[in-house]
This record gives sequence, structure tokens and C-alpha cells, in this order.
Amino acid sequence: MRPVSIVGIGQVPVEKQSSLSLRHLGAEAVRRAMQSAGVERVDALFAGNMLADELQGQKHIATLIASTVGLKGIEALQVRAATATGAAALRMAYFAVASGEAELAVAMGVEKMSSMPPTSALAKALDAEKEVPTGATLISQNARLMTLYLERYGVAYESFVNFALNAHRNAATNPHALFQKEVDVATVLGSRIVNAPLRLFDCAPICDGAAAVVLAPAATARAHTDRPVRILASAVATDWLRVDDRADPLALEAAALSAQRAFDRAGLSAADIDFFEVHDAFSIMACLLLEACHFAPRGGGWRLAAEGAIFREGALPLATLGGLKARGHPIGATALYQVCEIVQQLTGQAGANQLPDPRVAMLQSVGGAAATVLTHLFGL
Amino acid sequence: MRPVSIVGIGQVPVEKQSSLSLRHLGAEAVRRAMQSAGVERVDALFAGNMLADELQGQKHIATLIASTVGLKGIEALQVRAATATGAAALRMAYFAVASGEAELAVAMGVEKMSSMPPTSALAKALDAEKEVPTGATLISQNARLMTLYLERYGVAYESFVNFALNAHRNAATNPHALFQKEVDVATVLGSRIVNAPLRLFDCAPICDGAAAVVLAPAATARAHTDRPVRILASAVATDWLRVDDRADPLALEAAALSAQRAFDRAGLSAADIDFFEVHDAFSIMACLLLEACHFAPRGGGWRLAAEGAIFREGALPLATLGGLKARGHPIGATALYQVCEIVQQLTGQAGANQLPDPRVAMLQSVGGAAATVLTHLFGL
Repeated sequence: MRPVSIVGIGQVPVEKQSSLSLRHLGAEAVRRAMQSAGVERVDALFAGNMLADELQGQKHIATLIASTVGLKGIEALQVRAATATGAAALRMAYFAVASGEAELAVAMGVEKMSSMPPTSALAKALDAEKEVPTGATLISQNARLMTLYLERYGVAYESFVNFALNAHRNAATNPHALFQKEVDVATVLGSRIVNAPLRLFDCAPICDGAAAVVLAPAATARAHTDRPVRILASAVATDWLRVDDRADPLALEAAALSAQRAFDRAGLSAADIDFFEVHDAFSIMACLLLEACHFAPRGGGWRLAAEGAIFREGALPLATLGGLKARGHPIGATALYQVCEIVQQLTGQAGANQLPDPRVAMLQSVGGAAATVLTHLFGL
Repeated sequence: MRPVSIVGIGQVPVEKQSSLSLRHLGAEAVRRAMQSAGVERVDALFAGNMLADELQGQKHIATLIASTVGLKGIEALQVRAATATGAAALRMAYFAVASGEAELAVAMGVEKMSSMPPTSALAKALDAEKEVPTGATLISQNARLMTLYLERYGVAYESFVNFALNAHRNAATNPHALFQKEVDVATVLGSRIVNAPLRLFDCAPICDGAAAVVLAPAATARAHTDRPVRILASAVATDWLRVDDRADPLALEAAALSAQRAFDRAGLSAADIDFFEVHDAFSIMACLLLEACHFAPRGGGWRLAAEGAIFREGALPLATLGGLKARGHPIGATALYQVCEIVQQLTGQAGANQLPDPRVAMLQSVGGAAATVLTHLFGL
């Protein structure tokens, strides 16, 4: 297995409603990534998209995007893991290059959620026979986890406010972010209740976006860029699909297991992570992931937010360019935006959001109610 | 990149309407494959499914199947390439083992098409902006290709009859097949017109099914079976998604290119192939694939059928256990059934359908109107 590096990144600014159609949105991200890598052709394209079946009436997404970019003939396949779909596309591109089947592979994601309300299509990430008929949605399942958390640990709702504050502060200076504005405590705490106890600012927004990265063997990466970023580890783990089948819904075993696998493969531990691009689709999810990955003890994830460790100046910066909450969460594209941001940070291109000399970054991507979790580690 | 072998196969008999739900149908195939390999656990599961979003309201298929089998914790991802989806799952499992990320990986596919009419969901494999609004479906596009073929080459419709006869003859003795009965020329030629010039017997049936294979490194394959089958090559190529964008719609460039890539990777040519599990979703498609892969000259694919070369006694047996036409074409599962059948043939387990001492087999899987084509080669 040969080491793999990222040699190009491409992001289209996240918007509430893009003027571009799905194919042109996705193609634009791929073109930007290829231009960034200085290549006009790749061997393979792995596409992440979760909702086009319903929202655009379109399957065959990978070949659609390859066709739109003009890459006739290349390999093109679509990959999925519910709301972690973008990370699954990254993993497949990593496989393709690591195995030697491709010299240059694009991992891309695109989602156009503005076409119609996506809530019912998103809920298909849950168990369609046993959860959806009870009225469950991804939002309600996260609300349930937060209720359980607040009760079990006796934590106040207000303790979570910094997840949103941090995300918005970081997005304010990210030109690709949906919400380029800071928010204050009163705004978060006064925002409307979406699904109790979740308020609007606990939830990532519905939006349109696309992002892509180009992967190459580490041995030839410098032919494309003088600042390649190495993929140190890639790992996936699953939990029972249905939340009620889990011994402890707050334990997020798939997150713990995939993080442990990634750490083992890279020979690293949580202590080595300089910043964490976390899956903050909901503030409770960010909190639980911090605990599952051993950045905080069980019941203590919220403290990293409350005490400011998650800010850019803190011990474990999260969502350094706005996260799902404020950069936006166009599902299939989300993890690819995060990889682009990690590359920006590790190569000193994060502008106003630049962390001082980060060396190792972690990305975690959550499918559904944490039934599938992918962990990727990156370094120079 | 390490060589990869198939060490277990599992097939659930194809049915018009299975009494099993999607999850149990898929889980049963996985259990059978794991039992065949003598393993109780695998590292990863790659699931192929095309239509559950619409027909069962279910995404997150790979984790659903892993959960149902009881494989909590393993890697599980869904892969897609429209109607070639099963082959995409095989390719991902191949990547996982070849790269060293997994020691044992399952490639599985499941489709339950009986839940509701699948035609409109299937049509999403075409271009949703430029083809579907004109009224195009997968059936109508294949009808168009056949019309063009008959006109261009001055071939009579009757010249295609042996594709269906051969498939039904082979399915008659396959206990996993949907149609276990032979048909005669009069039945085929007298069958109703579905979409002119396509008659019922030119088209694969709508059905339910699931199949799976277990992959392991070739070096350790004999720990699981005394008859491992090597994956000699795996390749993918794409064409323009929209048929009208192609210089010659009858050329199937993606099929030609993916076959050439597979031959190059394996150091083989068309002359080395002992039998061909072709994508006979439509008889015209089988004919065009024979030409694209250089088994016949352009305009001459039908002759291999008319002259009997495609029969089990012929020079290039096709669809040796019934093919898509008569074993059935439960989309996401189809290529996995074909891989199981190839393993049966190469290991002398094909029963009444056994070919005499076959050494090298070819599988080709077509996504949409041949916009994405995967080619796999297998040998002992």
C-alpha cells in the first residue's frame, strides 16, 4: 500500500440557493481542484451525493459530473454513507491511489438541497422500517440525544452555546462560508426552537455546495504542488443502524472505533491532534464526538466548548473555517470542504483563520444518527 | 498492490416477488457467502443497491445490511454506478483488499424491485435534465439503439432470437434463476412488443434478489477454500452520460475502453476468454457489447448468437447460468450473481450448466445507457 497525498483542492462558496445546477456546481469544484493541482486529466473520480435521487431526479452522479467536466473515458463511481457521504468518496479515492489502480484520483462531493425540502429524504438515513414510521428524523434523533445528555449529566442547555459561537466566528472570515458573520450569546439562546431542546443555532443549515480534492501517490505529489498534504490514515466503523438497538445511545461506538482504527494505522493518539474538523451538524453531535474520540471524558465534551478549548486560540480548535454549522452542510460535499480547509490550515493558506503551525489534523464524518463514522487523519 | 481472490459466494434465488424484506434478502446473501468462505466476521462490506431510495424509502444500505447480519463495527459503504452498481461494489471490495486496508471484504448487492413499478426510478440513470424530459427511459434508449442497429446493418429482428433462447436454456437448470424454463423461437418472436422493436423476450425482467462474494488476499485464500478464484483485473470507463452526445451511439466506447483496460492489466486479450457473463439487460446491449469487446466486428455481434457461438457448446458461451434475461436482473445484485456463477464455472460447480474446463472468465456490467461500464476478469 503506497502513501497518498492531496495535491489540489477546489471549493465553490456555499450558498443558500446556488444559481448553478447540480452538475455545474459539482463540475466547478472538480475544475478548481484540478486547476489547483495543475492537471487537465485524472484517472478516476469518486462522487459523493446523498439526495439527488429525490431532489433532482438524478442518479449516475459520478458519470454526470465526469461528463460535465469533459472527462470522458475516466473511471467514475458514486459512493455513499448517508450524511458521511463526502468522506466515503475520499476513502474510495484513497483506495484507488493507495492500491495502485489510479495515479490521480478526484474525490468530490456535491449537494443541491435548495430544490425542495430535504427533510424526508434525509430521514432515509435512519431505519425506514423501525425508526421512520415512529416519526423519527435526523433532527428528532439528535434532539433526543441532547435531551438524554442534558438529563443524564445535569448540564444546562446554555453550556453548548460556544459550539455555535465558535463556528460563526470562524466562518466570518471564510469566503467559502454560507454565514460570514459572527453571532452573540443572546442570538444563539434566543433563536427559535426547531425540535426541543435543539434551537436553530444548534443545527447546520440546508444549503447548496460542492468541493473536491485531487489525490496522488505521495512519491509523485511534489510534481503537482510544493505543499502536498499526506493522508495519514483512513478508517470506517459502523454501529447498529437503529439508535434503540444500542446499549448506550450517547456512546457513539462507531465514532470511537473508527477514531481508534485511524489512530492505530497512523501510530498517533488524540494527544497528537492539533485541530479537529468535527461533524457539528448538531451541537450535541460535536459534543458526543469529542467524548467518543477521547478528547474529553464521558459527560465532559461540553466543557471543551464552555471553557474555550475549541476556539482557534484553544487547545483543540474545532471547525476552524466555520464547520457544518456556519460554513454550511451541503451533505455529500461537506467532508470535502473539510478536507480543503484542513489542507489550507496545514499549508498556511487559511488566511485570517490560520492556526499557528498545525501539524496533524483530524476529520470525522457521521452518517445518519452515528451509525457509520469515517475518520481521516492528515499531516505534512 | 496484492492479488485478490474470491473465497466464498452466496446467492438467494431470484424471485418475481420475494417474501423477504430488503434487509433480510441482502443479509441472507451475505450470510451464505460468509458460510461458504467459512468465516464469521469480515472487515468490510460494500453494498450495491440502486433503487431503495425510492422503492423502500431507505438510504444507508450498507450499514443496514451489516446491522442485519449482526456485523456491528465493521466498515460498511454503499457504492453505485446506476445499473452497473453490483460491479462497483465488487470493485470497491477489490480496492479494500488489494490496498491492504481489509483482509476479508464482502461485496454484496440487493434489489427489491417488486415493491412498486421501478421504471421512473431506473430512468434516473439517464440525464435528468436532457434525456428524461424528452420521455426517454432505459427501455426506450435500448429500443432506439436496436432500431438504429437494424437499419444501419440491414439485420432482421429475428437474428437476435438466440440471445433469449440461450439465456432461458441456461436458466432452466439454474436453481437460483427466476425463469427455470426453456423457450422456443415462436414464443420469443410472438411475445408482446414492449417498446418497438423490443419485445418482451429482449428485456430482462423486474425481480427481487441478492448475492454476495467474500474477497481475501490471494496469499491467504486457501485458508478459506481449496478453490479460490483470482480476480485478474478490474476496470471502469465512462462515456458521455447523454446518448446524443456520442459520435456513434452504437460504438459503446466505455465498454471498449474498460475491456481494453482490463485486458491490459491482466495481460490477456479477447482470444483468452473462455466464457463471457455479458450484460444482457436487452438483447441489443449484449450484441453491442460483443462488438465493443472485439469478440465480433462492428455490425456482426448478432452473428455470434445466430450461429450458436454463444451457446454452452459454442466458441464463446454467454450467460451460462441464465444471464440477466432469464436468471433475472435485480439491478444492484446482478453483477454479484454473475460473479458467483463465474466462480461456479471456474471451480466445476456449475452442475448441468458446467462448461468443460474453463480457465478465464469475463464479466461486463453496464450502467445506464452504457455511460459507465465495468469489466472484471477472473481465473484460477
